Amino acid sequence: MTAMNRQWLLAEQPVGPFDENTFRLVETPVPAPGEGEFLVRNIWLSVDPYMRGRMNAGKSYAKPVDVGAVMEGGTVGEVIASNHPDFAVGDIVDERLGWQEFAVTRGRGARKIDPSLAPVSTAVGVLGMPGMTAYFGTKEVMGVKEGGTVVVSAASGAVGGLVGQIARIDGAARVVGIAGGDAKCRYCVDELGYDACIDYRGFGKDTAALGQALAEACPDGIDGYFDNVGGWISDAIYPLANPFGRVAICGMISEYNLTEPERVPRYTRQILTNRLRVTGFIVTDFWNRWSEGLEGMAGWIAEGRIRYREDVEIGIENAPKALLKLFRSENFGKQLVRLRDDPTA
Amino acid sequence: MTAMNRQWLLAEQPVGPFDENTFRLVETPVPAPGEGEFLVRNIWLSVDPYMRGRMNAGKSYAKPVDVGAVMEGGTVGEVIASNHPDFAVGDIVDERLGWQEFAVTRGRGARKIDPSLAPVSTAVGVLGMPGMTAYFGTKEVMGVKEGGTVVVSAASGAVGGLVGQIARIDGAARVVGIAGGDAKCRYCVDELGYDACIDYRGFGKDTAALGQALAEACPDGIDGYFDNVGGWISDAIYPLANPFGRVAICGMISEYNLTEPERVPRYTRQILTNRLRVTGFIVTDFWNRWSEGLEGMAGWIAEGRIRYREDVEIGIENAPKALLKLFRSENFGKQLVRLRDDPTA
Repeated sequence: MTAMNRQWLLAEQPVGPFDENTFRLVETPVPAPGEGEFLVRNIWLSVDPYMRGRMNAGKSYAKPVDVGAVMEGGTVGEVIASNHPDFAVGDIVDERLGWQEFAVTRGRGARKIDPSLAPVSTAVGVLGMPGMTAYFGTKEVMGVKEGGTVVVSAASGAVGGLVGQIARIDGAARVVGIAGGDAKCRYCVDELGYDACIDYRGFGKDTAALGQALAEACPDGIDGYFDNVGGWISDAIYPLANPFGRVAICGMISEYNLTEPERVPRYTRQILTNRLRVTGFIVTDFWNRWSEGLEGMAGWIAEGRIRYREDVEIGIENAPKALLKLFRSENFGKQLVRLRDDPTA
Repeated sequence: MTAMNRQWLLAEQPVGPFDENTFRLVETPVPAPGEGEFLVRNIWLSVDPYMRGRMNAGKSYAKPVDVGAVMEGGTVGEVIASNHPDFAVGDIVDERLGWQEFAVTRGRGARKIDPSLAPVSTAVGVLGMPGMTAYFGTKEVMGVKEGGTVVVSAASGAVGGLVGQIARIDGAARVVGIAGGDAKCRYCVDELGYDACIDYRGFGKDTAALGQALAEACPDGIDGYFDNVGGWISDAIYPLANPFGRVAICGMISEYNLTEPERVPRYTRQILTNRLRVTGFIVTDFWNRWSEGLEGMAGWIAEGRIRYREDVEIGIENAPKALLKLFRSENFGKQLVRLRDDPTA
C-alpha cells in the first residue's frame, strides 16, 4: 500500500472572511526524494496571522499562494529519507514546507534543530519567526524608552506575549497589555509580568471607551506601542501617545479580512503634534541578524526571564480550524498544529 | 508727541477658518526699556503656517496665544535703545517679538545678526526656522535614499523650496514637487531644479487622480515624502511608496482650519506592507544642533547650490492678509511682512 500525504490546498482566494471552504484537503502519494533531495515528515505546523495575506491575489510583501497550491506555512519535521549530503535520516529540520504531512525538499531554506537545546516546536515559536518578530520589533523598530510605558496589543499571543517581557527587560517602567478575555488578561499579569491588561471585549469596538481605560492604565501616557491588531483598538493609542512616542506596526489581524480599509480620522495630526515615529516592519527584514536574535532570546529563556505558551491542535485536518481560532482571538499563546507525535519530546 | 506702537492682538480663537476679524489692530505708546532691557524696532515679521495652531485653545506642542495678547511671530529688528550690557543701539536681532512694530525685551531669546553675511530677512527664512526645518527634516527625519525619488508638497514654499534642493544635494536621483498653480510649478522646475512639479489645482481634491499623475511623475515609486500640507494631497502618496519608504510630516496646512479631522482609509496597512517609517517633527527638536544646520545651509548658499525666494507684504497692517495668503496658497516663497525700510539693505 502506498503511503499517503495529506495536504491542504488553497481552494479559492477569499473575498472578506475565510472559512473551512477556503481550503481543500487532498491525499496524494508520499513523494520520493530525488538526487540532492530529502523527504521530511512534518511534526509541527506553525499557524500565523500573515497566512491571511497569502490568500489574497493583491500585491503584498510576499507572493500569494496560487489557488490549487499547498498552503504556505512554517514547519518542523524529521528527515525520513535522504539523498542530500548535508541532511541525514533522523535530523530535525525547520523549513517552510506548508500545510502537509510530508514534503520533499532540496533544503535551501532548511535549518537543522538541536532537540537537546529546547523543545523543537520552539523553532517556529519563541526561537523562530514569532520570537524574532518580538525581539527585533521591540528592540529595534519600536525601541524601548528607559522608564517609559509600553502598550502591546494581542498581548498574550505568540509575538505579543514576548514583547511585553522584552520591553520590561529593556527598561520599560510600565507594560500594559490589551487582550481578548479575562483568562488571557490574567495570564498576562500573573505569568508574563504585565502591570495591567485590558480586556477589549467589553468595549463593543468603542475606541473612545477603550481609550479611557487605557488612559487610566497608563497614567504617564504611552511611549511605545507594539501593534499586532490594527483597527479600532489601535485607533485608541494615538491620542494617548507621549511626545516622541514610537509605534511599531507588526500586524493588523483585525483588518486582514476587510475588503476595504475602514475610514477613520487621520492619525497624521497626532503624529506631527507629538512627533511620533510610526514604522511598519516584517521580521525577514532582520534576516541577516537572525543568529543575534536567537542568542539573545535563548539566553533570556535560560535565565528564566522569558515565558511562553503554546496552543496545540492535533492533526493536519485541524489546520483551518487552528487558523480560524487566530482570527477569532480564540487561541491562547502560539498556535500550532501537531501533525504526529513529537519523537523528540 | 508720544511715539506709537501698532500691534495685532488675537481678538478671538477661531473655530474653523480665520479671517481679518480674528485679529485686532491697536496702537499703544512705544514702551521704554527698563533696567536690563532694550527696545527693538522690528524690520521683518515672519509669517508661518504654525501660527494657526497658536490661535487654538486646544493642546498642541506649544502654548496658545491668549485672546487679547499680541500675536506670536518671529521678527528681525534693530535695537534703538538699550539698558542691556550685551545689546547696543544699532544691533540687529532675531527674536520672537510678535506682530508689532516695537517691543521691549530682556533678550533671552535674541540672537545678534551680522548684516554683512546675508540679508537680515534670511534670519527668519533660509537661515532661520524654515531653513532649519528643511535642513534637519530632509537629512535627519526623512533621510534621502541615494538614487531614490523624493516628493515634496508645498514644493515652492519657504520650507519645501529648500527641501527639494537639499534632497538633490544629498543624492536623490529624482525630485518631484507638488504645488498650487502653473507659475509655482515652473519656478520649481526652472529655478529650484525639480525634475517635475504637479499642479494640484487641476485635480479637484481627487486623491486617486493626483495619485495617477504622481505615479507617472515617479516611475520608480516614491522613497521619501516631505509633507508640508497633509490632507487629500498626502493621501495620494502612501499607495505609491516603495518598501522602506520614509515620510517626514512637517506640516499640514490644508488641515489646520478643520474643526474635526477628515475620515480617510487607514494608512496603516500601507505602512506595514511597505515597511514605511512615518515621523512627525518640529524644528525646535533640533535646537541643540542649530549652528550645525546654519553652517551647512550657509555653505550651500555661498556655493550657489541653494536658491530661495521671498514674498513681501509692506506694513504691519497687512500681517493678517499675509497669513491668509499662506492658507490660500497665494504666497510665492517665504512670506514676510516688512514693517519699515530695512536699514541694512
